[in-house]
Parts: sequence; structure tokens; C-alpha cells
Amino acid sequence: MNETMVTVVGNVATTPVYRELPTGPVARFRLAVPTRKYDRVQNTWSDGHTNFFTVWAWRALGTNVQGSVSVGEPVIVQGRLRVRDEERGGQHWTSADIEAVVVGHDLSRGTAAFRRVLKANPALTEPALREPALREPAAERDGEPSPVGR
Amino acid sequence: MNETMVTVVGNVATTPVYRELPTGPVARFRLAVPTRKYDRVQNTWSDGHTNFFTVWAWRALGTNVQGSVSVGEPVIVQGRLRVRDEERGGQHWTSADIEAVVVGHDLSRGTAAFRRVLKANPALTEPALREPALREPAAERDGEPSPVGR
Amino acid sequence: MNETMVTVVGNVATTPVYRELPTGPVARFRLAVPTRKYDRVQNTWSDGHTNFFTVWAWRALGTNVQGSVSVGEPVIVQGRLRVRDEERGGQHWTSADIEAVVVGHDLSRGTAAFRRVLKANPALTEPALREPALREPAAERDGEPSPVGR
Amino acid sequence: MNETMVTVVGNVATTPVYRELPTGPVARFRLAVPTRKYDRVQNTWSDGHTNFFTVWAWRALGTNVQGSVSVGEPVIVQGRLRVRDEERGGQHWTSADIEAVVVGHDLSRGTAAFRRVLKANPALTEPALREPALREPAAERDGEPSPVGR
Repeated sequence: MNETMVTVVGNVATTPVYRELPTGPVARFRLAVPTRKYDRVQNTWSDGHTNFFTVWAWRALGTNVQGSVSVGEPVIVQGRLRVRDEERGGQHWTSADIEAVVVGHDLSRGTAAFRRVLKANPALTEPALREPALREPAAERDGEPSPVGR
Repeated sequence: MNETMVTVVGNVATTPVYRELPTGPVARFRLAVPTRKYDRVQNTWSDGHTNFFTVWAWRALGTNVQGSVSVGEPVIVQGRLRVRDEERGGQHWTSADIEAVVVGHDLSRGTAAFRRVLKANPALTEPALREPALREPAAERDGEPSPVGR
Repeated sequence: MNETMVTVVGNVATTPVYRELPTGPVARFRLAVPTRKYDRVQNTWSDGHTNFFTVWAWRALGTNVQGSVSVGEPVIVQGRLRVRDEERGGQHWTSADIEAVVVGHDLSRGTAAFRRVLKANPALTEPALREPALREPAAERDGEPSPVGR
Repeated sequence: MNETMVTVVGNVATTPVYRELPTGPVARFRLAVPTRKYDRVQNTWSDGHTNFFTVWAWRALGTNVQGSVSVGEPVIVQGRLRVRDEERGGQHWTSADIEAVVVGHDLSRGTAAFRRVLKANPALTEPALREPALREPAAERDGEPSPVGR
């Protein structure tokens, strides 16, 4: 409640780092969000300031980001913004983090083949669940290694 | 300027319809955005109201949506909201449309393999262009059929 | 969870209607959100489509809207979007409602004198409460008639 | 284009500082945006992380903010997010700025008396202008000091 939700569109600036923590799996990457400035006199666009965010994807989203997102790819991220200020070793640090609710590839820049992940472990996906899984991929029915949890 | 931008997360409710218009290609589909209600007494979630939108994707985004998005898939859409009211044949109609800026698969629900589309025709991609295409897929260099419907 | 939150900026198109319901007070008004189109060739702006929404403000927000907002005033509204479709008497109706979380006057268009409302009845303000009331206006301490309809 | 727009709701943490710059007037203040955490087990809310932003209001908005907004007041701000990173004197600094498009008092917390500012100087208000001023305050017609900056 009263969270600052943001939707940002940019490019993955670092290879996602994946960890299995006691609180669940998490994938983390830096996102570069360039802006474009319009010059009315010249009637042209030029590059403006670039915002950088650290994106955190937890649970099923983290697992799927790890299996789907590479450095350089264009993505859209929706999530909760956290601006943090700290003092470490006499240094002043601030970071802008986004705890992602949704991550997706930006289809204005390319195509994507999507594959729904079977809800194998309700504990992982329940918080984000909004409908039953409609299609059960053959591979998972056959007991082959699931694409999640790698 | 002063547009009502929205970000919605839901399921593709109809097969995208693709048209080549004089103003460029466009893909259109219905999006269902269910909400979940929290019951404090029962400490449970139940289904709430479902919003429906008609999503319009133009130019390169339309072409890539046509080549990537199927009915039933979970997506995130960011775009400009249009609420329209009309009188047709004595009937009163309102529709809620979204002119999409970005569409992407919701990776909290599955995995996706992304492929950047080479900017073959500047006229198609210029309005959405924010950086040069970094990698040129081999298939397109070799003149093989492209995965998108150009 | 998974609500479609929107922030809209426009003009109050109808006098707010105030009701005391069993579930609490509510104020309702129509909001007109005009858009402006930019013409690159002419380098000018012109009027575009206008979106209309029905805004619902509940509890303390409803009481304060009733005491503060008049037809014609420019406001910003943040809330949950509801697009409704119904069949009534053989007619098809759709409406776009916003359940407001915050309403405020648009200070790019004028000035405003703000007065914090003392939290007299916790039941009214608790859901929106984010901090203790810091200042207690003299008038209310003295038992003078309050500007809001409590 | 491709700006990261945010809408934040919080409390004014510092007295707005007003400057007349060659590029126009500007008002600047710090905004504290607290979040609330829900504890499902205890069924209670507690304070979470607080985000701090520096809000910049330019031109007519800056003048009206200066004349309307005081430290401690609850406001809603919509604008463009800028996350800046710099090295100064061997120190690493980051700040999260919002270039405000709209600022308004949060009416869920109190009441406000609004007064439209006559467009006396087109150069100040043109960029934000979306409709003609409907009412002409008497004071301005009579050549009295302007209602802003009091």
C-alpha cells in the first residue's frame, strides 16, 4: 500500500546474477533507461539523460528471468521503486532499485517465443498466480527436467 | 503531452488480428485484466472484477506482436488509454482502447526466447527506435525467411 | 494486487455528488481529460481526443473532495481503473470508473490553501492513514464548525 | 519520449526553495514517501522503507508551489524521474529527482481552497496550458499584486 510503482523500458546492462536464497530464488541485473530529447527548432531527437536501476526479480519471476533474459536485450519492467541512501566506509551511496512484479521483452524491438511454465511448486508461484495454467507443456508431463529451478 | 499512460498486466483474450493499412501495419487484440480481492477476515484472495481493453500495436510493434503473441498468453502492455463513447444505430457504445507503446510476455508466468529484429525498413521502426540494433541475426543476413511477417 | 492504477490530470466536468452510504461517505464526479496532439510539420499543438472518467472518492477522501472541489477546477487523480460493460434494457453500456486513492488540485493552474483535517474518527481515515496528524487547527480545537461535513 | 513517469504520494520534507533563473522560476523541495508493510500473520500494517526525492517545479507550477505548499503538507506529485550518479571530491553521489508536471495537495488528508491563476504572462504558463482560464480573479483585474508568491 502506498508503494511507488514504476514502469520502465530500457536495455539490460549487465548479465543477470542468479542466487538461491533461503527466502527463494532471485535474479538481479542493471537496467539502462535512455531518454530522448526533442528539439523543436531543429525538429530532431537527440539522446538525453540515462537512468540506471538495479532490478530484483524474486521467486518464479527470478527463475524465468534467469532462463530468458540476456545482457543487451530490450525489456519492460514494472515494479516497486526503492531509493536507498547509505553511508559505507565514509562514502555516501544511493541506489535506485526496482523490485520487479513483471519483466517482459520489448516486442517493439524484436520477436519472442513464449513458453508457459507449469506450476510445479505452488509455493514458488502462488503469490503471482492470477489464473490456472492453461496449457501443460509435453516435456513437463513426461517427467523431463523442468525449465525452472536450474 | 498530457496523455493518460497505463501499464496493464493480463491475458490475451482473442487471437491478434493483423492488417496492412496505408498508415502501416497494425495488430489488434482484446486483453483481459483480472483483479484479485483480499479478504482481511478470511485472510484469502478471491477473483474480483475483470477489465477488458482493446490493444492496438502499430508499425514494427504490430508486426512483432503478430509474430510472437498468441491467445491465452500472459502479457504486459504499456500505452495510451483511450475511452471512447459513440452512438451507433441508436445504441450507446463505449470502448477502452490502449494504443500500445510496448508489449511483452509476462516472465512471472513462463520463459521467452527473444530475437532482435534487424531494422530492415527505417520507416517502420524509426518512431520506436531508441538505439542501433546491436546484433544481426545470421538468418536475416543470409536472406532466409524472416520470422516476422514482412 | 494486480490492480490497474492510473494517474489522470483533467478538469472536473460535473458538480461532485455526495452521499452518506452504509459503507461510508462517497463523492462522485465526472472528469474530462483532454489530450493535445503535436503536428511535426506545422510545429503546433492542437486538441485531440478527450477521455471521460467517473471518479469515486470514498470515506475521508470523499468528505474532503465534497468540501474542496468544484466543477471546472483542474485536478490530478490517482486510483484504480474499472472498465465496466453491462446490458440494460437491451442497451449496451460501458463506463470507465476510477476508485480514487488521491485527489488534488493541479497547482500548474492555480494556487491552493490546504488545511489538514484532524483525525476525529479513526474508522474514517485509518485505511488511508500514513502518518499522525501533525498540526491541530485552532478552529477545530475550539469546537467551531468544521469545514468538512463530519 | 520514453521518459520514466512516476506518481508519488508523500509529505513535503523541506521548505520549498524558490529561485528566479534565466530559464524561468523554479521551486524545489524534498519529498518523503513512506511505505506501509502488511503482515499477513499479525493482520497489521507497519512502517516500511521511506523513499526520498528532490522535486523540481518550473515556471507557473514553480510559482504556484511556492505560494501554496509548506513543509509537512501531504502532496501528490507526477513527473519525470531522473536518477543521477556523480563523482564529486572523490565521493560518489546519487540523487533521485522528479521534474514535476503536476503537484497537488492530497485531499485524503485535508481540505483545500483552490484559486485559478489568471494567465497574465503567456511565457510562464503556455507550456502547461490545456484550456482557457475560465474565471478571472477580481484582484488581478484591478491591478492588485498577483495572487501568487504570497
